[in-house]
Amino acid sequence: MRVVVPYAATDPKTRLADALSADERTAFAEAMLADVLAAVRATGREPELLATAPVAADAPVTVDDRPLTEAVNAVLAETDEAVAIVMADLALATPDAFGQLFERDGGVVIAPGRGGGTNALVARHPEFRVDYHGTSFLDHLAAAQEVGAAVEVVDSHRLATDVDERADLAEVLIHGGSEARRASATRAAEPRATRKSLEWLQSAGFSLASDESRVGVVRDE
Amino acid sequence: MRVVVPYAATDPKTRLADALSADERTAFAEAMLADVLAAVRATGREPELLATAPVAADAPVTVDDRPLTEAVNAVLAETDEAVAIVMADLALATPDAFGQLFERDGGVVIAPGRGGGTNALVARHPEFRVDYHGTSFLDHLAAAQEVGAAVEVVDSHRLATDVDERADLAEVLIHGGSEARRASATRAAEPRATRKSLEWLQSAGFSLASDESRVGVVRDE
Repeated sequence: MRVVVPYAATDPKTRLADALSADERTAFAEAMLADVLAAVRATGREPELLATAPVAADAPVTVDDRPLTEAVNAVLAETDEAVAIVMADLALATPDAFGQLFERDGGVVIAPGRGGGTNALVARHPEFRVDYHGTSFLDHLAAAQEVGAAVEVVDSHRLATDVDERADLAEVLIHGGSEARRASATRAAEPRATRKSLEWLQSAGFSLASDESRVGVVRDE
Repeated sequence: MRVVVPYAATDPKTRLADALSADERTAFAEAMLADVLAAVRATGREPELLATAPVAADAPVTVDDRPLTEAVNAVLAETDEAVAIVMADLALATPDAFGQLFERDGGVVIAPGRGGGTNALVARHPEFRVDYHGTSFLDHLAAAQEVGAAVEVVDSHRLATDVDERADLAEVLIHGGSEARRASATRAAEPRATRKSLEWLQSAGFSLASDESRVGVVRDE
């Protein structure tokens, strides 16, 4: 199975502009990408990047400056084997969560994102193509049906959490270290997991803040 | 295992006031509760309600008008067997998702909510107590550690999605019928699943609407 990670190399994460400068958004996007690549590798697979521009990364890079949908469909068209398409901003992804996606049988296996997106999928049916515009999760269900592919849906909060907006940063602060926290609670000798996106946010001064109804983030001045 | 569903019987879902009238919020809360009870029953367990005031429901009802934390801890204190505490607004819950929660080993098993809440948990350790204020997921990890309970975390988008705000309604419209949609795509004879919360939203005129970056809901006038 190929595991392809699309990556917007230029001006990434624009919806985080109210929380991070342009340089910071690039650095944070790179940290999330590193976390995604590490989690894929921990499942025993070698990820590859599909980037909009040349980028230095610890993985093979294909550059395709077309929009996401067209670039991904070019990969699907050229490949006979199963292909996984995994978004680069799944900062909470774990090997277990990716394992559920990669190992589930199905002509098309989808991990929906919050808000109706498609955060990761596996395409085994040769005619299946993607369309990332709009409510792509529902569109992908329909597209799989059209080509006669059996569909499976992966129910994972970690894979449903793409980090696009300021509120999403709280999820990284909450869950980015919880495996380690939980491990320390139950197995004292467990090595502490490191997640680059969490480390980056913490070093940039972000921490959790809560009011009555909702948990958000604050940043040290 | 007891399965206890806390239910705010008076003026529920105040954070949906920008989308629904008071009467509508009550009706929608009842529809979500019915979905939760049905999903629990489909796992072979009999749910019971822990309500803030007398309420007509298709399950045994205990009335306790104290705040959520105190009322739940009273249940934990009086019970020797395992107790599951399941929020009443998990409109996307399925028997599979609840099965993952109920059947996972662990002194404390937690299904976190988006934003750091605790949407469902199973307490098997006799000394564990809840505190739903603030980032309760992290507090519950720490509380389990304090009493020496082994903790497991359930990674489920369905269980992470409590329906509190207008944006959450989109999740119901997207995923409330997707099991049925997927079943119809793959197994033509499958009976169509019904979800009362989805039916209620649709009959109230809600449907999905999307702009470039985010999917929301609109309501027919």
